[in-house]
Amino acid sequence: MLTVMKFGGSSLATAEKVENAAGIIVKKAREGSDIVCVVSAQGKTTDELVKRAEEVAKAPSPRENDVLLSSGEQISMSLLAMKLCDMGYDSISLLGWQAGIHTDGRHGNASIKSVQTERIKKELGKGRIVIVAGFQGISSDDDITTLGRGGSDTTAIALAAALGADECCIYTDVKGVYSANPKVAPDAVKHDEMTYDEMLEMSTLGAKVMHNRSVSMAKKSRVGFEVCSSFDGERGTFIHDFAPEKTVSGIVCDGNIAMLTVEGIERGENTCRLFRLLAENGISVDVIIRSQLYDGGKGTVSFSVSETILPQVRALLEAHRGEIGYTKLSAETGLAKLSAVGSGLADSCLVASYMLSEMNKLGIDPKYITTGEIRISVIIPREMSISAERALNSAFFGEGRRL
Amino acid sequence: MLTVMKFGGSSLATAEKVENAAGIIVKKAREGSDIVCVVSAQGKTTDELVKRAEEVAKAPSPRENDVLLSSGEQISMSLLAMKLCDMGYDSISLLGWQAGIHTDGRHGNASIKSVQTERIKKELGKGRIVIVAGFQGISSDDDITTLGRGGSDTTAIALAAALGADECCIYTDVKGVYSANPKVAPDAVKHDEMTYDEMLEMSTLGAKVMHNRSVSMAKKSRVGFEVCSSFDGERGTFIHDFAPEKTVSGIVCDGNIAMLTVEGIERGENTCRLFRLLAENGISVDVIIRSQLYDGGKGTVSFSVSETILPQVRALLEAHRGEIGYTKLSAETGLAKLSAVGSGLADSCLVASYMLSEMNKLGIDPKYITTGEIRISVIIPREMSISAERALNSAFFGEGRRL
Repeated sequence: MLTVMKFGGSSLATAEKVENAAGIIVKKAREGSDIVCVVSAQGKTTDELVKRAEEVAKAPSPRENDVLLSSGEQISMSLLAMKLCDMGYDSISLLGWQAGIHTDGRHGNASIKSVQTERIKKELGKGRIVIVAGFQGISSDDDITTLGRGGSDTTAIALAAALGADECCIYTDVKGVYSANPKVAPDAVKHDEMTYDEMLEMSTLGAKVMHNRSVSMAKKSRVGFEVCSSFDGERGTFIHDFAPEKTVSGIVCDGNIAMLTVEGIERGENTCRLFRLLAENGISVDVIIRSQLYDGGKGTVSFSVSETILPQVRALLEAHRGEIGYTKLSAETGLAKLSAVGSGLADSCLVASYMLSEMNKLGIDPKYITTGEIRISVIIPREMSISAERALNSAFFGEGRRL
Repeated sequence: MLTVMKFGGSSLATAEKVENAAGIIVKKAREGSDIVCVVSAQGKTTDELVKRAEEVAKAPSPRENDVLLSSGEQISMSLLAMKLCDMGYDSISLLGWQAGIHTDGRHGNASIKSVQTERIKKELGKGRIVIVAGFQGISSDDDITTLGRGGSDTTAIALAAALGADECCIYTDVKGVYSANPKVAPDAVKHDEMTYDEMLEMSTLGAKVMHNRSVSMAKKSRVGFEVCSSFDGERGTFIHDFAPEKTVSGIVCDGNIAMLTVEGIERGENTCRLFRLLAENGISVDVIIRSQLYDGGKGTVSFSVSETILPQVRALLEAHRGEIGYTKLSAETGLAKLSAVGSGLADSCLVASYMLSEMNKLGIDPKYITTGEIRISVIIPREMSISAERALNSAFFGEGRRL
């Protein structure tokens, strides 16, 4: 029996929380499982390191930034291993390069290429609990890389796949995956299980539990995993291939949305060029609306981006105005994207009609609506997002629910 | 032209100090020198990490402690490299394992076994300024080790030797090596140069500028180096093989001394056993006095230890009382060791007589006196140590000096 565990930054933030995590590990080890435990940096460590980089350099070198940031996990992993040793459990911590986590060379956003498990297996063979630094790896040039957002979860999934682990537990400060954000909608329901696709869609749409990159890797490697709380010991949410179909599995709200509108752009090649440019610069857009009103072969394209990166996206589009060929660029800010997710949304019109009726009750007239295979999203004013999320959760999951 | 530099923790404590260090590096690079720069952890980082280890574990695992502590240099090296990149100078930071610093496996107190310079040379060949983490290396098991006290200086000396550097500059927060501690004796004289042996003796006796281990390695590898200030740009003190002989080169005071007295110990084998026991436990003793008054083949041995480790040494001797066979153990605390160092102390009686006459003027009657090839030490009450250091500095280096 081999268990891969992962503890996030909030689950390791203080000496007391390190002790709590060590307790969970020891409990599992006593049940007879070999343990590989992936850790994030403690609490706000990464943010503090980012601030220190900004103090010395206007544009920190990506390679050096990775060296700096990766020290956060180095600290937390050694503290956890120390704690376990102190409790009488033989434990060893391994950095990315020691744990055989090989990545490409994209500093700050590297992808895992392969995992060489020799060292981890050797240490497990000695009866040791192995603690591995999440979020980091090593490039073919022997340079430290970091995996970007969701990095530690990705490390855990990759190790579970490479080691053929029997279970993979992602410990966090929430109790599992809910039908809506429980802080916003108090009657949100915790799911016992979900499919990868449902979880993927929820992550992509803004649920903060896990990054879609990690979920995507789990799906690709067919690693089932459980999201659970490091504080209550109850069952969390199990994410795997097959789970009972739910018409709607969750309501997700992303409150950091702006809509950009590009007017007077030619159909065909130029519109492609616009999105290629965005892709090349690592900018992800979600809701895309193409206006049907063409004016001499020209039209209008609107799309949503994170409001945080709006200035960067505007500057990019303005710099390439000639190449893309448009007449006007405008932005609308202060928006939120509210989505209903579910693998059983085939009859999406029904869900859409319920959604719109709830919006209507709140006096919201969504400007943009978009549907995917397993989700329906509406763009609404940000100040309405909390009441709208609550209303949708009640409509689909509360007493007297409509589906 | 290849220069190895080293910046200590106080020279890198803040973003401003990192900028100052970068300025010194750039100046040297512009003069046409290739640069390898070794760094310590910023300011009090190491102390803070030690505290965090103590929060989680009563007895931190030495291996994990090394993983934890080595993150301090990782942070400072990446910040310095970032700063240089930001200033337009291509720079790269390398951790101990990347820089090819191979050590034995004694965690917390490792020794450098060899330096594989391929990676450093490759980066220098690309025209880069290479920043190396001091104080750390890698064992043959691929585990991170730390070098113990004086570690970053040792790294710099080892790299200067392995790379055949043309110069080696140890930047610190003092202006060089003085005849006495300038904070205590305001008329202390800065030396332009010194021999390894003089520096070694001063370090061993308590001068805080450099650890004797680093000086010892410099002597063995015949690496000449300069100790200088990172804040004034003036010449510091050059330490090498041949320097003009000075009768007395410095006054050094170690204010953390206790004397332990072991009574009723047999001569011969048992006394050897006593010191072997101390050596095996890494305890260094300095002044050793054997009483001439034997009582049926038994005698008395007194020796000095750091007062900090007195409880540890007492406990050790008590635990081995049967084996060593003594009748009484006693300790005297609150002492200081004041030493005069100089490679020209051949006629040590003269220096000793001057020392004792200065002590006498201050009403001090030193309980213990010991002489070595190039030093004379007296053990005096700690509360007299500042006035005694001042008096000796004036006697040997001030106006109207006696030698």
